[in-house]
Amino acid sequence: MRGKFITFEGCEGVGKSRQIGYVKELFEQKNIEYVATREPGGPEIAEKIRALILDAENAAMCAECEALLYAAARAQHVSEVILPALESGKTVLCDRYIDSSLAYQAYARGLGETFVKDINAFALKAVPDLTLFLDLPPEAAFARKGGADEHDRVELSGAAFHKKVYEGYLKVCETYPGRIVKIDCSGTREQTRAKIAEVLAARGML
Amino acid sequence: MRGKFITFEGCEGVGKSRQIGYVKELFEQKNIEYVATREPGGPEIAEKIRALILDAENAAMCAECEALLYAAARAQHVSEVILPALESGKTVLCDRYIDSSLAYQAYARGLGETFVKDINAFALKAVPDLTLFLDLPPEAAFARKGGADEHDRVELSGAAFHKKVYEGYLKVCETYPGRIVKIDCSGTREQTRAKIAEVLAARGML
Repeated sequence: MRGKFITFEGCEGVGKSRQIGYVKELFEQKNIEYVATREPGGPEIAEKIRALILDAENAAMCAECEALLYAAARAQHVSEVILPALESGKTVLCDRYIDSSLAYQAYARGLGETFVKDINAFALKAVPDLTLFLDLPPEAAFARKGGADEHDRVELSGAAFHKKVYEGYLKVCETYPGRIVKIDCSGTREQTRAKIAEVLAARGML
Repeated sequence: MRGKFITFEGCEGVGKSRQIGYVKELFEQKNIEYVATREPGGPEIAEKIRALILDAENAAMCAECEALLYAAARAQHVSEVILPALESGKTVLCDRYIDSSLAYQAYARGLGETFVKDINAFALKAVPDLTLFLDLPPEAAFARKGGADEHDRVELSGAAFHKKVYEGYLKVCETYPGRIVKIDCSGTREQTRAKIAEVLAARGML
């Protein structure tokens, strides 16, 4: 049986890594086999692409180039990591996936949905069974992580950009109400954790 | 007045760089301002992407990832080098462009025209005024350059692959008979050079 594919989305600093850590603990307690991975990145080739995308030295990168690099890293990730894991029956937990491209590239960078969906056409081979959108506006999220990382080109894009990303995410949530579940993250980590566990249980994934 | 955009296409070893060198000499004799560039590559970001694509260490790269990396490098090249040069009235001479993606990715790697055209949609901002296809079958071209470069992942793809690339090019030539001119390269370098000069003159580009 094909494994479940669960993706985690949200603005910078919202606590995706930590919550994925909690979900891993839950899966270990229940003996559910999983692979935890992240985007951009995953396999070696995708990590090299990640380094190019995030390097603050590459400030001259145009929006199309950036979107295509994210898609290139994802193509390798899907073919080398995600599909083989799903086909072997494992649950895949992925930190960011196609909805990040929609929020960041299609909406915030203004490239539009058509181009971003076209360049990610291969991602239809691995559509998430569930996407958890960790919902916290960017001001609150950045405050929580103590400001932007000055070595990260994307985090340095400015408050107006991150506000557009957040609005992009809200549009994506409206478009896929079945696949995406919004998790209000304004409370404590433990409250967020409990909400996520409740959604996973309700979907029969725990 | 916008400058002319001239691209050079053909299989590995066919002599594109040398012929572009000859065209540069012709342009210098006639005081025509030009920018000579190449794909994948050009600006610094695109050269970094080129290094990833061609590195023989990245043998596990899937076809979609490769095609998207070529497109990413091209997007940066178009926005940072090609469009500014054309807009300043210079002629741009480019070693490989969109037709390489059609021949290599759409046909030889089997990704199909739709995906490859979709991911290169931005290239419509800079459509070549003239494409010179240096026509020599791959066996003859590789023999001329003394075999494949063992550090170059694409050159190492094997004879059957390069045969498909050549057939892909022939299809592309049939599709765009106005834009693409086939130059028979089976003769000497000087004969090829004379044919190219004749085409450039006939199109009012010399």
